[in-house]
Amino acid sequence: MAKDITSKLNDYSQWYNDLVIKGGLADHSSVRGCMVIKPYGYAIWENMRDALDKAFKETGHVNAYFPLFIPKSFLSKEASHIEGFAKECAVVTHYRLINDPNGKGVIVDPEAKLEEELIVRPTSETIIWNTYKNWIQSYRDLPLLINQWANVVRWEMRTRLFLRTAEFLWQEGHTAHATAKEAVEETERMLDVYATFAEEFMALPVIKGKKTPNERFAGALDTYCIEAMMGDGQALQAGTSHFLGQNFAKAFDVQFLNKESKLEYVWATSWGVSTRLIGALIMAHSDDDGLVMPPKLAPLQVVIVPIFKTEEEMNKLHEKCAPVMKELKAKGISVKFDTDDTKRPGFKFAEYELKGVPVRLAMGMRDYEAGTVEVARRDTKEKSSRQFEGIAAYIEKLLVDIQQNIYNKALAFRDANIREVNNWDEFLKTIEQPGFISAHWDGTSETEDKIKELTKATIRCIPLNNPQQDGVCVFSGKPSKERVIFARAY
Amino acid sequence: MAKDITSKLNDYSQWYNDLVIKGGLADHSSVRGCMVIKPYGYAIWENMRDALDKAFKETGHVNAYFPLFIPKSFLSKEASHIEGFAKECAVVTHYRLINDPNGKGVIVDPEAKLEEELIVRPTSETIIWNTYKNWIQSYRDLPLLINQWANVVRWEMRTRLFLRTAEFLWQEGHTAHATAKEAVEETERMLDVYATFAEEFMALPVIKGKKTPNERFAGALDTYCIEAMMGDGQALQAGTSHFLGQNFAKAFDVQFLNKESKLEYVWATSWGVSTRLIGALIMAHSDDDGLVMPPKLAPLQVVIVPIFKTEEEMNKLHEKCAPVMKELKAKGISVKFDTDDTKRPGFKFAEYELKGVPVRLAMGMRDYEAGTVEVARRDTKEKSSRQFEGIAAYIEKLLVDIQQNIYNKALAFRDANIREVNNWDEFLKTIEQPGFISAHWDGTSETEDKIKELTKATIRCIPLNNPQQDGVCVFSGKPSKERVIFARAY
Repeated sequence: MAKDITSKLNDYSQWYNDLVIKGGLADHSSVRGCMVIKPYGYAIWENMRDALDKAFKETGHVNAYFPLFIPKSFLSKEASHIEGFAKECAVVTHYRLINDPNGKGVIVDPEAKLEEELIVRPTSETIIWNTYKNWIQSYRDLPLLINQWANVVRWEMRTRLFLRTAEFLWQEGHTAHATAKEAVEETERMLDVYATFAEEFMALPVIKGKKTPNERFAGALDTYCIEAMMGDGQALQAGTSHFLGQNFAKAFDVQFLNKESKLEYVWATSWGVSTRLIGALIMAHSDDDGLVMPPKLAPLQVVIVPIFKTEEEMNKLHEKCAPVMKELKAKGISVKFDTDDTKRPGFKFAEYELKGVPVRLAMGMRDYEAGTVEVARRDTKEKSSRQFEGIAAYIEKLLVDIQQNIYNKALAFRDANIREVNNWDEFLKTIEQPGFISAHWDGTSETEDKIKELTKATIRCIPLNNPQQDGVCVFSGKPSKERVIFARAY
Repeated sequence: MAKDITSKLNDYSQWYNDLVIKGGLADHSSVRGCMVIKPYGYAIWENMRDALDKAFKETGHVNAYFPLFIPKSFLSKEASHIEGFAKECAVVTHYRLINDPNGKGVIVDPEAKLEEELIVRPTSETIIWNTYKNWIQSYRDLPLLINQWANVVRWEMRTRLFLRTAEFLWQEGHTAHATAKEAVEETERMLDVYATFAEEFMALPVIKGKKTPNERFAGALDTYCIEAMMGDGQALQAGTSHFLGQNFAKAFDVQFLNKESKLEYVWATSWGVSTRLIGALIMAHSDDDGLVMPPKLAPLQVVIVPIFKTEEEMNKLHEKCAPVMKELKAKGISVKFDTDDTKRPGFKFAEYELKGVPVRLAMGMRDYEAGTVEVARRDTKEKSSRQFEGIAAYIEKLLVDIQQNIYNKALAFRDANIREVNNWDEFLKTIEQPGFISAHWDGTSETEDKIKELTKATIRCIPLNNPQQDGVCVFSGKPSKERVIFARAY
């Protein structure tokens, strides 16, 4: 393979970068920390968005759109929110440029200074709850189940394409409820939506859990998350769902008349996933030949590479394949017949492997005569010659198999790399291996901080439905009732 | 009707505002000039977006995403672009907030000043062409057919919901071509896509034309547009498609090796429509009872209002309607059965009229027994009692009729309000009537400016395929070869 992809084993980080850039998913831009999402990467995001949007709507949510800008004072209204979000962000201070009187170009007009600075939203709780104040008066207005697809900005100094950039795309759900119970149910429901999406579409097994107080969203009473294992054994938080209690309702004075005609503060949740999931998708499944796309999210599911010498041959092959392409499209399967005559088949094979196209068909004149076709699957790289007759039905089934196989492989890898650890020496040794550690923890922030300081490992989550068992904290030796998941993380 | 909607005839502008606010389409926000697009308004935008996105993809375009921020210096690179866009815009100057040492809240960290200010994109030609520089080397890389769905910001002092706001949502296509001919073809192709969308989905007849040099997009050699007539006779520019020549390629040094291995500058187009179209949709079709939604864009196409006294009756009616709802959904028609027992049928009727739901069915126990149902269409407000048997097929056809009828009505209104005017006195009289004026113009900016100054009317466009005829300019009396469209505009 002459694709110039760094080997995963040699340099995981460079391998990842090579896949993103050479696979045509994204590019760095001239704006520090901001990426360009290229068409192939954006097509993956569109597939993710469509699947998630459908799931949100099926669970009763509607979409809306709130302003990009947040008045600076809003960020100060919720005490813990500000600590988490008000720091590294893009600040708009002026609203006009003028021609530079001393020369070329433009300068900021000093006369056009905003009375109050505007912050480019790092997340929208504040502006949304300030709006909900006008929308919620009575229990009849609840629940309010709204989602927003938007761009957000968090000023990051060290950026990595998809995983951490100053601007990224995401969705943020913001719901309002009459009771704490309903809000907690919503928080858990959306965690399930995320987990189902990760497993069924991304072929990515996840651990559902709660964050420790240290790792909670700024302003939440409880943060639920799904945690996934990447190919290097590190953890990636793939989605979060927050129970916000009445914090934002109190900060923005959002009260409603309950059925007993008494005023109460509204209960809130928020939940989100972002283009970071594209990073997770890449790191979970890909290999040294390039991307491996789960069929359900692949921008292109099937490619047909004709092998021909003359245009006449190409036309014959195209004519032969046309009915099959029609059949596949009718089944909702995307397919491309590659007519490009400036590239050789071997080059094309490598290109489609790099792009992670799940199924590749190749057909030359010998196949044409014999009524056969070569079928290659990207996940296992197996090739076989098959009867052309009935190939569409075969491909339909094959795509299901590939989706399942990618998931099974990721699951087996993950399960083989979660290790129960029972003492500190073992912890120090094990944390140097790829994977997660399941260990007892005494429940204190001090221990959590100390472990992070010594090993860079954080508590990824306290798994839901966690078996309760007596044990002692792997670090402090104090008593513990359950194991938690430690890992180094993206 | 007690909906508190101002009458269209009394105060068109207030009528519009009432529909937007009371129809639940959008709200003002706490951020000056920025709107909140509420769920019902956003659902219209989703339908518009999906229809347009499909048309873009069918014409070979793909989506991508470029940074929100544009370095200030980029705006200065294309000389005429800067005059048009670099002025009223949001300027990011800092990237951090800190706790106010003198008290509560946060202040902008004076240490965190950006070396170069960033502009929140008012349009993306500059950042995109700066990126294309890296993507285009050879004629093999062309054409590059990319679209972006995004938010943009233009600092507007006088704002109106959907029609003119500081932040709005839009799509912007940016294509790169090897020849001027191909770029012009693309510009015209996308104008046709917009016109077809306006007519077939929005039920909005449009005039396709070219802008005069005065009204061109800043940086374009030619701006094509579609112009529509609103219910008050004013014009609204519903979409533009620009032939940018080699201006941006030269500004950002984007050259390619042509087939003869010679370096050439790339040819460009850009084209866009925005959430402004929602404003157009409202103003083109609605009446004093509320919105009138063309079925193809209606968030809800059919509503069933059961008329019942007891829960048992409601259940019977629901059971009766369930198979029809299933049948409608299978036809891709959205339908809701309104079970709310806290509102009376008359209130609900008014609500759905306000929302513009194209078809309303009402069924009481007498209908239930008789096997009938009342069908009301929103566009004409006609009601009739019909056999329940076969109602789904009837509704399917009715929705097509309604779509066509809304278009026909808008077309008849428009055509009745385009007036040929041949002298200045007549012009001054006619411009005070609602509608467009078709008149001869001498082709000079001076005359155009003078007419605008005296009457507030602008040249909306020089229609495509305009009949050539000798005449004299309505203002200057100088010779003219064709008539152009004058109007006051949104």
